[in-house]
Amino acid sequence: MTRQELFEQIKKKNSYLCVGLDTDLTKIPKHLLKLPDPVFEFNKQIIDATHEFAVAYKPNIAFYEALGSKGWESLQKTLDYIPKECFTIADAKRGDIGNTSALYARAFFEQMSFDSITVAPYMGEDSVKPFLEFKDKWVILLALTSNPGNADFQLQETRDGKYFYEEVIVTSLRWTTPDQLMYVVGATQVDKLATIRTIAPDYFFLVPGIGAQGGDLEEGSRVGMNTQCGLLVNSTRAVIYASPKEDFADAARKEAGHIKGQMTEYLDKYLSAI
Amino acid sequence: MTRQELFEQIKKKNSYLCVGLDTDLTKIPKHLLKLPDPVFEFNKQIIDATHEFAVAYKPNIAFYEALGSKGWESLQKTLDYIPKECFTIADAKRGDIGNTSALYARAFFEQMSFDSITVAPYMGEDSVKPFLEFKDKWVILLALTSNPGNADFQLQETRDGKYFYEEVIVTSLRWTTPDQLMYVVGATQVDKLATIRTIAPDYFFLVPGIGAQGGDLEEGSRVGMNTQCGLLVNSTRAVIYASPKEDFADAARKEAGHIKGQMTEYLDKYLSAI
Repeated sequence: MTRQELFEQIKKKNSYLCVGLDTDLTKIPKHLLKLPDPVFEFNKQIIDATHEFAVAYKPNIAFYEALGSKGWESLQKTLDYIPKECFTIADAKRGDIGNTSALYARAFFEQMSFDSITVAPYMGEDSVKPFLEFKDKWVILLALTSNPGNADFQLQETRDGKYFYEEVIVTSLRWTTPDQLMYVVGATQVDKLATIRTIAPDYFFLVPGIGAQGGDLEEGSRVGMNTQCGLLVNSTRAVIYASPKEDFADAARKEAGHIKGQMTEYLDKYLSAI
Repeated sequence: MTRQELFEQIKKKNSYLCVGLDTDLTKIPKHLLKLPDPVFEFNKQIIDATHEFAVAYKPNIAFYEALGSKGWESLQKTLDYIPKECFTIADAKRGDIGNTSALYARAFFEQMSFDSITVAPYMGEDSVKPFLEFKDKWVILLALTSNPGNADFQLQETRDGKYFYEEVIVTSLRWTTPDQLMYVVGATQVDKLATIRTIAPDYFFLVPGIGAQGGDLEEGSRVGMNTQCGLLVNSTRAVIYASPKEDFADAARKEAGHIKGQMTEYLDKYLSAI
């Protein structure tokens, strides 16, 4: 998917919501467990209920990998089921030496045909480049994550007085264009999100940390939005586990619709203001 | 496996060789391709030919994941086939927020029963801790890798004038003990390996970069060895692709035996010297 196509979809749906599909057998409603593929059945109903409001879906690969080959089948079926207009993110946080990253890229972009994959930056340029060799496929590089451990290394200061995550962004800007690279930027520290927007004005950010983790959607949207929106704000638990019962899909629809309503307002307020 | 058991095995085999199982269908001898599971057949013959000399085996997970569910089956069969006295490393370079890392830990330690997994440090303590909750299982944390991209971030300097990879080591030393944590330390820069040994005197290092990548085995051993050896030196291509023909297993045996011969000499020279 191209950047323009993603933006068109955001405008059409009036939303920049990404729904995380971290589908966990211990958390989905019990009545699904007697079906042959409960993970896919759960995802299917969540997608049916939310695709009107969501522009992207992000399965976290760990949840599927933990189920072995059955999990990979559920993942493939889920990916096939997601409507074609939606942007798909393999939240895999991969990254290895060049020939190995090339294998991961083929697995996620060719065999499974995701639009994008999250990548960890620690091993540097040659670990990221192989993912950039696929036309209209995207790397979403971890910059500032929303977990408590981000303080350990991402918030270390470099000799130039920059945060380490800024170094990651500034360095990786040289590797490609905003048409193939996005950054993971947590919403839990709005001042830093604002600074990152000045460093990378044209890039899309995948933003976790809204809701349960404490990030504020309006503030994040206000400081993070660019002329093409430039934000995919992720919500996982608040949407997919909105109800633990048989009405889970309805509850997910309500929650996604609620978030979409806010996003419509913020697009109106902050997109036109730029 | 405990640290003591690993050291006992090193003394028994007079070797600290780790063989990488980056098994690639485009590189293995053609005659294997007509078998039902060429990847496992290749690995089986490599293991048969080298286990006399190798104390550890390290499948790089990307090579299996790229083959889909068939690849995971080949991996499981390979893991089951590796002799029980050998230390097994899932070279997966995972690392995610806490509940997700916990899933990866269960996948690799419980379902597949690897002794250890390589982990990327970027997301900090809560992304690593879940892997440390399994008794006698190990995290091998990326510190200084041997690829060219290590210069991009690992060799950045912090405000205190340390390299970033030193910050990773110093910080993570606080998370656990040398009984559950090792570091990936490339052999391509021997001076840095020597420094890292002073920072983490009791820890095992997994050392890539010998041979094809230019690292010198004797120099690396001289500066890196501690009183329990403390080194697992990895060789992949030089061993498993020693010959592209039907004699690949014999060629692998010769190469592994050759490396083991050098290691025996260095153990004699540098282990007793400490």
